[in-house]
Amino acid sequence: MAESTEQGDAKALADLLYVLDLEEIETTIFRGHQTDAKRIRTFGGLVAGQALVAAGRTVPPTQFVHSLHAYFLRPGDPTRPIVYEVDLIRDGRSFATRRVTAVQRGEAIFTLSASFHVDEPGVSHQQPMPSAPPPETLPTFKERFKHLADSDPNAWWNQPRPIDQRHVDSSLRDGTKREPRQQQWFKTNGALPDDPLLHACIVAYASDMSLLDTALLPHGIAWDDKGFMGASLDHAMWFHGHFRADDWILYAAESTVSGGARGLARGEMYTSDGRLIVSVVQEGLMRVAKP
Amino acid sequence: MAESTEQGDAKALADLLYVLDLEEIETTIFRGHQTDAKRIRTFGGLVAGQALVAAGRTVPPTQFVHSLHAYFLRPGDPTRPIVYEVDLIRDGRSFATRRVTAVQRGEAIFTLSASFHVDEPGVSHQQPMPSAPPPETLPTFKERFKHLADSDPNAWWNQPRPIDQRHVDSSLRDGTKREPRQQQWFKTNGALPDDPLLHACIVAYASDMSLLDTALLPHGIAWDDKGFMGASLDHAMWFHGHFRADDWILYAAESTVSGGARGLARGEMYTSDGRLIVSVVQEGLMRVAKP
Repeated sequence: MAESTEQGDAKALADLLYVLDLEEIETTIFRGHQTDAKRIRTFGGLVAGQALVAAGRTVPPTQFVHSLHAYFLRPGDPTRPIVYEVDLIRDGRSFATRRVTAVQRGEAIFTLSASFHVDEPGVSHQQPMPSAPPPETLPTFKERFKHLADSDPNAWWNQPRPIDQRHVDSSLRDGTKREPRQQQWFKTNGALPDDPLLHACIVAYASDMSLLDTALLPHGIAWDDKGFMGASLDHAMWFHGHFRADDWILYAAESTVSGGARGLARGEMYTSDGRLIVSVVQEGLMRVAKP
Repeated sequence: MAESTEQGDAKALADLLYVLDLEEIETTIFRGHQTDAKRIRTFGGLVAGQALVAAGRTVPPTQFVHSLHAYFLRPGDPTRPIVYEVDLIRDGRSFATRRVTAVQRGEAIFTLSASFHVDEPGVSHQQPMPSAPPPETLPTFKERFKHLADSDPNAWWNQPRPIDQRHVDSSLRDGTKREPRQQQWFKTNGALPDDPLLHACIVAYASDMSLLDTALLPHGIAWDDKGFMGASLDHAMWFHGHFRADDWILYAAESTVSGGARGLARGEMYTSDGRLIVSVVQEGLMRVAKP
């Protein structure tokens, strides 16, 4: 008998926690395992999340990640582990900076720099959270793809998911050209341990799941369209405060520009009580057969 | 007799071109000179510009920089050269990625990653340029600071400037709290050679000159206020097309969030005919004596 959606999603979250719990080879060398060997290439958000775990493991727990900047260099091979080498580039009184290289078969597949900061008091301001319907009123991922469920049982929209994503605009993949903006709520499919680094890594993972879609909206392109080739090129995040990834987070994204086979998208994440907690910017490859 | 503003500004631009013309020590090692030993620390935009020159010198001229991500690690000493070591992290068919470490006295003061891409066709969209008064109708930097000109002949607002900056909001430094948004036009004080890398490096230099001011506006703080300590923490840029830094560029900036002694600001740059050519994001330290 097939497992229920809930059982499948809980196992997917357990798998994600497993792969984010890196094996320490040496003080600054970590090995990340993978659980989804059937993928064509490793999911970029997984590499970003694992690299952030590696960086964070070398930093005192009094310093919290406040930014990361990464480049995707080569596709990751999902059938083998990824090794993360951490360069302790700076340890200051209040800031620490790390540079991480993700390696497979002797080649760098990904590089990330991240900075960590102690909690300090300061002045504050933020732009208001945009209005959005509450997450409970929105369809689940499975409901959103219900019309495709029977088309291919092994398709990505039928796989168990560690993250519960609720898109505000539930229509998609119909070729319609839209404004380059979208909103979704997300949280993990289950409770998480308290370690703040884990919550940041899961948000890094989740931030890569949909951001570049925003740059495709004005062109009516879907990721698996024939002749289209898309990939994350880089990834930058800023963390503005503490938060939990097992509570609802609103992810509001827009794409400001595309051209030259690249597109830029940015997003802001808010807690349900309106705090701006994360900013994300990502550029992606957008190659079309006949532009 | 004192030199004229025009002579001073032309010399300041010549100095900038001189410091951006790095000395090649080895294929991947460059030395950058400085001309302003009186500064307390090296201007961050100069280090970013020199690091981008170093990265770009190791890349074929058919590949143009499309993004960079950098961290400021330690203050640069303006009395000595900076050495840039370039790591050729990836050379692909259409993309090349470089990692640069800027070193003084054996310590990394700055690290930059940059990616280069051949020109490719693609679909395109962009957000429209915001409206702004034409640059010729706006005060020059000198005119903007006229009321302070006699207060201190050696102050930074009386120094010759390589970049002609025309702020749309000409009032400042009066302690008023404002919306976290500003606009300015800028171009170099004189014509530049055609090398596209040079134009990108000058825009990188210029992008660091005013961006973080935006995060201070809601708090009525100026950079040299007593008890305030500000510094660039990181710098990210995306280049969306070709442009000239000796033609007017509109730089529209806003700050979305601050808190925890840090502030985030982003900006977009447009040619005068409305093309979005550059996006910038920067986080800065904003330490106040009594928040």
